[in-house]
Amino acid sequence: MRRIDIEAGGYEIILNEEDAKELGVYPQDRMKVRKDGMILTAIVNLSQSVIKEGEVGMFIEISEKLNVKNGDKVKVIPTSRPLSVDYIKKKINGEKLTRDEIYEIIKDIVEDNLSTIELTSYVTAIQIRGMDMDETEWTTRAMVDTGETIDFEYTTFDVHSIGGVPGNKYAPVAVPIAAAAGLKIPKTSSRAISSAAGTADLMEVLTNVSLTIEDIRKIVDEVGAILAWGGSVNLAPADDKIVRIEYPLGIDPHSQVLASVMAKKKAVGTDFMVLDIPMGPETKVPDEKLARKYAMDFITLGERLGITVEAAVTYGGQPLGRAIGPALEAKEALMCLEGKPVSNSLIEKATDIAGMLLELGNVAERNKGKEHAKEILKSGKARDKFLEIINAQGSKGIEKSEDVPVGKYTHDILSPESGYISIVSNKALVKIARAAGAPKDKGAGILLFKKKSEKVEKGEPIYKIYADSKAKLEEAVKIAKMLKPLKIEGMLLERIPAYKK
Amino acid sequence: MRRIDIEAGGYEIILNEEDAKELGVYPQDRMKVRKDGMILTAIVNLSQSVIKEGEVGMFIEISEKLNVKNGDKVKVIPTSRPLSVDYIKKKINGEKLTRDEIYEIIKDIVEDNLSTIELTSYVTAIQIRGMDMDETEWTTRAMVDTGETIDFEYTTFDVHSIGGVPGNKYAPVAVPIAAAAGLKIPKTSSRAISSAAGTADLMEVLTNVSLTIEDIRKIVDEVGAILAWGGSVNLAPADDKIVRIEYPLGIDPHSQVLASVMAKKKAVGTDFMVLDIPMGPETKVPDEKLARKYAMDFITLGERLGITVEAAVTYGGQPLGRAIGPALEAKEALMCLEGKPVSNSLIEKATDIAGMLLELGNVAERNKGKEHAKEILKSGKARDKFLEIINAQGSKGIEKSEDVPVGKYTHDILSPESGYISIVSNKALVKIARAAGAPKDKGAGILLFKKKSEKVEKGEPIYKIYADSKAKLEEAVKIAKMLKPLKIEGMLLERIPAYKK
Repeated sequence: MRRIDIEAGGYEIILNEEDAKELGVYPQDRMKVRKDGMILTAIVNLSQSVIKEGEVGMFIEISEKLNVKNGDKVKVIPTSRPLSVDYIKKKINGEKLTRDEIYEIIKDIVEDNLSTIELTSYVTAIQIRGMDMDETEWTTRAMVDTGETIDFEYTTFDVHSIGGVPGNKYAPVAVPIAAAAGLKIPKTSSRAISSAAGTADLMEVLTNVSLTIEDIRKIVDEVGAILAWGGSVNLAPADDKIVRIEYPLGIDPHSQVLASVMAKKKAVGTDFMVLDIPMGPETKVPDEKLARKYAMDFITLGERLGITVEAAVTYGGQPLGRAIGPALEAKEALMCLEGKPVSNSLIEKATDIAGMLLELGNVAERNKGKEHAKEILKSGKARDKFLEIINAQGSKGIEKSEDVPVGKYTHDILSPESGYISIVSNKALVKIARAAGAPKDKGAGILLFKKKSEKVEKGEPIYKIYADSKAKLEEAVKIAKMLKPLKIEGMLLERIPAYKK
Repeated sequence: MRRIDIEAGGYEIILNEEDAKELGVYPQDRMKVRKDGMILTAIVNLSQSVIKEGEVGMFIEISEKLNVKNGDKVKVIPTSRPLSVDYIKKKINGEKLTRDEIYEIIKDIVEDNLSTIELTSYVTAIQIRGMDMDETEWTTRAMVDTGETIDFEYTTFDVHSIGGVPGNKYAPVAVPIAAAAGLKIPKTSSRAISSAAGTADLMEVLTNVSLTIEDIRKIVDEVGAILAWGGSVNLAPADDKIVRIEYPLGIDPHSQVLASVMAKKKAVGTDFMVLDIPMGPETKVPDEKLARKYAMDFITLGERLGITVEAAVTYGGQPLGRAIGPALEAKEALMCLEGKPVSNSLIEKATDIAGMLLELGNVAERNKGKEHAKEILKSGKARDKFLEIINAQGSKGIEKSEDVPVGKYTHDILSPESGYISIVSNKALVKIARAAGAPKDKGAGILLFKKKSEKVEKGEPIYKIYADSKAKLEEAVKIAKMLKPLKIEGMLLERIPAYKK
């Protein structure tokens, strides 16, 4: 046995090529590895020279689990592929999987029994072949059953956005409004993967977001809501492992989006949920038809799982509010809660969604929810509730919007001409904010002074880039000048000459 | 820079997770790595603890190429994915790829620019989406262009089997027959992947099979044919890298089978080729319809490439001849060439295929090829030619069938009852032969005493297992008793009682 001090991401071993030939094993085959009484299944890699004949190289995960050190004797025996590999082939062939087959695949994903090749093939196959609602439900349930769960003794509510629009900080406003009205909302959210800030990144500017199951139960009991990071609890852990394959390929199988979202809701026992579907160019949902499909699929899957889902198709053609990036968004959300002047789009969306929650929870009558939500926001009760939440989670001592520290290096981008803003590119803004350091550098991001259809004079600042370091600011400015995320046009777009006489 | 003495299978580096967050790179992203003047593109892996912040871990391939040692300073810069990844997504979406896109993918495969995830997704996508004949032709040509090629100044012939039937040693008989008649046959073949012996494994019992391009040219010039291992020359190297993904998944995209076979033929400049399609239960081709599809696809692709293909659908319902395993098959082929009594199936198939070659080469008239081939075999000229070939390649000094060393540990399997052999399972026999040590242990394998429809008495030996080691023999016997590869039935299969009066 020879230890290799590298994480393999699962149980993996290395054999010398000659030994492998002798044993009839090929790369990616599986072997049982035995040390004293303990047996683990590992995936085989080959080496021509580093691992000598008779040696077994072991990556960190398996050598720690077996508690072996260099020179220890271990026994390796070829073993067959897990049954899941046959089920993956079934999906490749276009067949429908059974409940048990899906459970087996998800269990093997969670337990790291599948190699990268097998898992990638599965993700690609479900992207191409799709899954029907039965398979999607079974996937969701398997994801719930292979992770931790929380049971609340009372009815709980949740909000979720499928994402795709930058600056989407509706949750830190909508959740405290609903909680102030007495609803229970254990809201877990994700960190940014390819965006400039996830809700968890934003909340982390103000409070601790890594809660245990016990923390979550206790805070929801006492305060009514949390706004925490889902990754700190082991809800539907298959999701993370699947995302690791989807991300480098830039694919997102529809059935898996449904299953991943709903598994995390089911795992915390959600009863009612509002789903935000941002629609518009450069979002995940470019048109009404696709928005309706998303809505209906979530509603149907919710019904099968015992979760009442109501969908809100929202305008996603440009960022929500004016701030992009963790600290800038936290500041804007706080300003909104404090009743300070912020973009109407943020107030409208947050109270729309909070209003839907109030109606679902019978706190407001049908079509009276938004009005009620606005009153709660205006009264300051939502702000008080928000401070209660961040204090319960572990406040970082920032309680006012003006105290939120934002990037100290800034650069104003000026309008190259007079006219009207005709296009605001979501994707370009995200690229610039990420170049400036977001989401890792909390102070980095963008503050928009102008949005779509607004009038602008030549030389007037149209947005400001923030960064925590000078080098990253310069990089972001360079990219901003290249991508030009805001397009300006005069009211006269084209001049068509008269016939010449 | 910290060196990690492990083969990664390509250019791969490891960063600390914190650094990666800082740089905004995720696992499987790419980075440019710069040392002195040299720049390589590498795929990123992450480590929590082994690689410290500020360090870059480098696997063997890249650290050797850059010639760096521990502590050296290197510069890493995030870089975008190769264009191929977009083309792979196009195929996932079901679109047809262009010639240039396919070339780009194949080039990136050969140059190790694709990660395991990307390559697996490509292979899975072409398995599911398929490729039309244009795409298949472009894949073939790209595979040829990204490897070595040989040009002969004269017309050359080839034979190829799509495989699937054990004991398929027709080539060492058919090739010398055709070469004895004056045809030029640069026959490269593969080693076993999942079978008990490839033609290259079998030939290696008698001669050196690792030839250079120059060796091949010289021997074909002088002797008329080779029977060597294709892997020793770099013909269509994309194939090996694709097989490495297909094998663990047990998938075999049809278009890729076509492209891989024909690229290797095109690379050696084949003009005429006979394609063996074994058909029957437990082969790759269970029915006539699929056999015809294979045949037509190879013929069509051949025509596009300027290769005249004639297909032979052959009986594959049980092993060819009686021997399975490298040495046992080499011995049986030699016996056949020497005119000693061997199974009719071997003589018939080898002369059928040799006859087709003779007709294609205008050495025999239409429908007279087989007769002519049988005469050459009977005359001893094929045997002389075979000895010339193995001598030219580097004989191991075994020139007679009785001198071929076979496994010294043997076990006879006896018939448990009297009756007739009703089923001979190809797959079970391969499993037993592999358990006995084939293809790596050359002497290991199986000799069948009885084949389909033959009569057998209770207690009579029906086959013998050979092994080079006692332990493997025991393992193989155990598996044989479990799998029962030969089924015996009395002539009375079922007894239906009369009505009771």
